Amino acid sequence: MSFDLTILGSNSALPTSNRYPTAQVLTVPGRFFLIDCGEGTQMQLRKNRISLLKIDHILISHTHGDHIFGLIGLISSMVLLGRKKDLHIFSHSELQKFIQFQLDFLYQQEAPFRLVFHPLSFKSPQIIYQDKKVSITSFPLKHRIATCGFIFQEIVKLPKLKKEKLEEYKIPIRDRQKIKEGSDFVLSDGKIIPNSELVIPANKPCSYAFCSDTAYHEEIIDTIRGTDLLYHEATFAEEHKILAGETFHSTGKQAATIAQKAGVKKLILGHFSARYKTSSIILEEAREIFPETYAVEDGNVYKITGEE
Amino acid sequence: MSFDLTILGSNSALPTSNRYPTAQVLTVPGRFFLIDCGEGTQMQLRKNRISLLKIDHILISHTHGDHIFGLIGLISSMVLLGRKKDLHIFSHSELQKFIQFQLDFLYQQEAPFRLVFHPLSFKSPQIIYQDKKVSITSFPLKHRIATCGFIFQEIVKLPKLKKEKLEEYKIPIRDRQKIKEGSDFVLSDGKIIPNSELVIPANKPCSYAFCSDTAYHEEIIDTIRGTDLLYHEATFAEEHKILAGETFHSTGKQAATIAQKAGVKKLILGHFSARYKTSSIILEEAREIFPETYAVEDGNVYKITGEE
Repeated sequence: MSFDLTILGSNSALPTSNRYPTAQVLTVPGRFFLIDCGEGTQMQLRKNRISLLKIDHILISHTHGDHIFGLIGLISSMVLLGRKKDLHIFSHSELQKFIQFQLDFLYQQEAPFRLVFHPLSFKSPQIIYQDKKVSITSFPLKHRIATCGFIFQEIVKLPKLKKEKLEEYKIPIRDRQKIKEGSDFVLSDGKIIPNSELVIPANKPCSYAFCSDTAYHEEIIDTIRGTDLLYHEATFAEEHKILAGETFHSTGKQAATIAQKAGVKKLILGHFSARYKTSSIILEEAREIFPETYAVEDGNVYKITGEE
Repeated sequence: MSFDLTILGSNSALPTSNRYPTAQVLTVPGRFFLIDCGEGTQMQLRKNRISLLKIDHILISHTHGDHIFGLIGLISSMVLLGRKKDLHIFSHSELQKFIQFQLDFLYQQEAPFRLVFHPLSFKSPQIIYQDKKVSITSFPLKHRIATCGFIFQEIVKLPKLKKEKLEEYKIPIRDRQKIKEGSDFVLSDGKIIPNSELVIPANKPCSYAFCSDTAYHEEIIDTIRGTDLLYHEATFAEEHKILAGETFHSTGKQAATIAQKAGVKKLILGHFSARYKTSSIILEEAREIFPETYAVEDGNVYKITGEE
C-alpha cells in the first residue's frame, strides 16, 4: 500500500497569488483525510480534482485563521452538493463554537448532514483514528496556542502464506494463523519447516507525519522516529531565527535538525513566510543538515511507500 | 475620468478552480471599492496586483456565504500587514455580528484599526457614499434574503472656462461661477456672449451598476437607466428558467431584458451556476435581446467612460 499526499496550500498566514494557506490531503486507498483547511481549500481541491464529497475526515492542527478559514466555505459547498454522510472534524474543542456560530448565521435549519467533532488532547500523543488500513496519532507541538501534529501509520499487515507450501506440507487451517504470526511448522516426522519458507513477507508499512505550526521542539522526535515522509513547517530562514523563536515557528535548519535526529527518510518544508520571494534560502540552509529535504509547492503530490 | 472594474470572482455559490465566488474591485482614481467578498478574494486581489491596504470601502450586497466568506481572511491579512486606517463596510446590519464573533474568537485584543459598519436600507435607493469624485447609491434587489445592488456615479463636473475668453471679455471673478453653471455673459454695451463660446464642456460622467443576486426585477430599471456598464447576475440558462424563479436568480435573457429596458450601454454577466461547463449558452441567449452583452471571467478588467 502507499499514501498519496497532495499539497493544497503551502504559505504561512499571508497567502500569495500562488501559495495558499495551509491545507493538504492525505489519500490512503479509499480514504481522503484533509489536514488543515486554510482559505481557498475548496478551490484547491477542485483544481487538484479531489471530490469535496469524498472527504469524511478533517484534521485541524490549531485554530489560527490560516488553518481554518476555508472550513465554512467547504462545509457550505458540501451542503449545496447534497452531502448526507457524517463529516468528522478532529480539532480543538473550541472550533465547534466557531463553526456552529457561522452555520447558525447562514442557515435557518440544521445542515442535512452531521458534523461530528472529536476534541484533540494537547498533552500527549493520542490515537485519534484507526481502521483496517491506517491509524492516526495526534501529538502536541509547541506553538503560541494549543497545536497538534498528526502521524499517519499504515496498519502492519501479516505476511501472506505461500499456497504451494500449504499444499506441499498439507498444513491444516488451524495452524495457518500462527504461521502468519511467525511460527515455524512441524511435520508429523518431527522435521521443522522454517517460517521463512512458508510466507511471503508483507510490504513495510508506510507513514507520514505533519508538523505545523511549531517552534523547534525535540519532544516530538520519539513520536515521528523513522517516518517515511515528514512535513515540518519552516516559516523562516536563519537570518530570522530570533523572530522564529518569538513567534513559535521554525527555521528550515531547525526543521532539518528534527528530521535528522528522528531519522526520517525524507523531509518536506512549507508554511513559508510571504517575506521571502522564493523558498530557496530556507531549503539550502535545511539541506546543510539533512540533504533529503524538499520545499513544497501548491499542487505537489508525494507518493509515500514504506520501501527504502 | 474613468472607472476601472476588475472581476475577482464570477461564479455562483459553488466555486470552480477557475471561477471564484463573487468579488469585484471598482477603481475610481485614488479609491478602491471592493464589491462583495467571496472566499479567496484576498488571493485574487494579489493575483491582480491590487494592494489589500488600498481598500478602504467594502460593499456587501447580501449575507449569503459566497459573498462574504472572504471577509475574515482579508481583515486578518490587513491586521498582519499593519493596517491603521479605518475600514468601512456597507452591508446588512447583521454582518457586523458575524464578523465581530470571528474577530473575538481569533484575537485576544482589539484589531489595530477600526471597522466602521454602515447598515444598508433594503426599502428604497439610498446614497450611501459621496466624495468629490463619486457617489454610490444602494438599491433593493429581489432575492431570497435582503439584497442590494449598487450604482457608482461620477460626480458631474462643471465645464471649464476658456482662459482666452476671460481675458478677451475681461470677465470679473464674481461672474465666473455663474458662467460655469451655464449663464451667458453680458458686456457693458449690452451684447450677449453665449455660454457655449465661454466654456469647454466637461466630459460626460461615467457610471457602473452592480446587480447580484436577484430575480428578474423591473423596479431597478429607473435607478440604473442609461448606465455605462451594468453587471447583472445570470446564474441560469433559459432551460432552467423555473429554477431561476424559485431561487430568486436570473437567466441571461432576463438580465438582457433589464439592460435593454434600462437603455444601458453595455451589459456584463456573471454569477454563473457551476452546472454549466461554459457561459456560452447563457451569453448567446442574452445577446438575442441585448447584443452588447459579455460574459465576465475572473481577472477581466473593464474601463468605464461616459463617452459613447
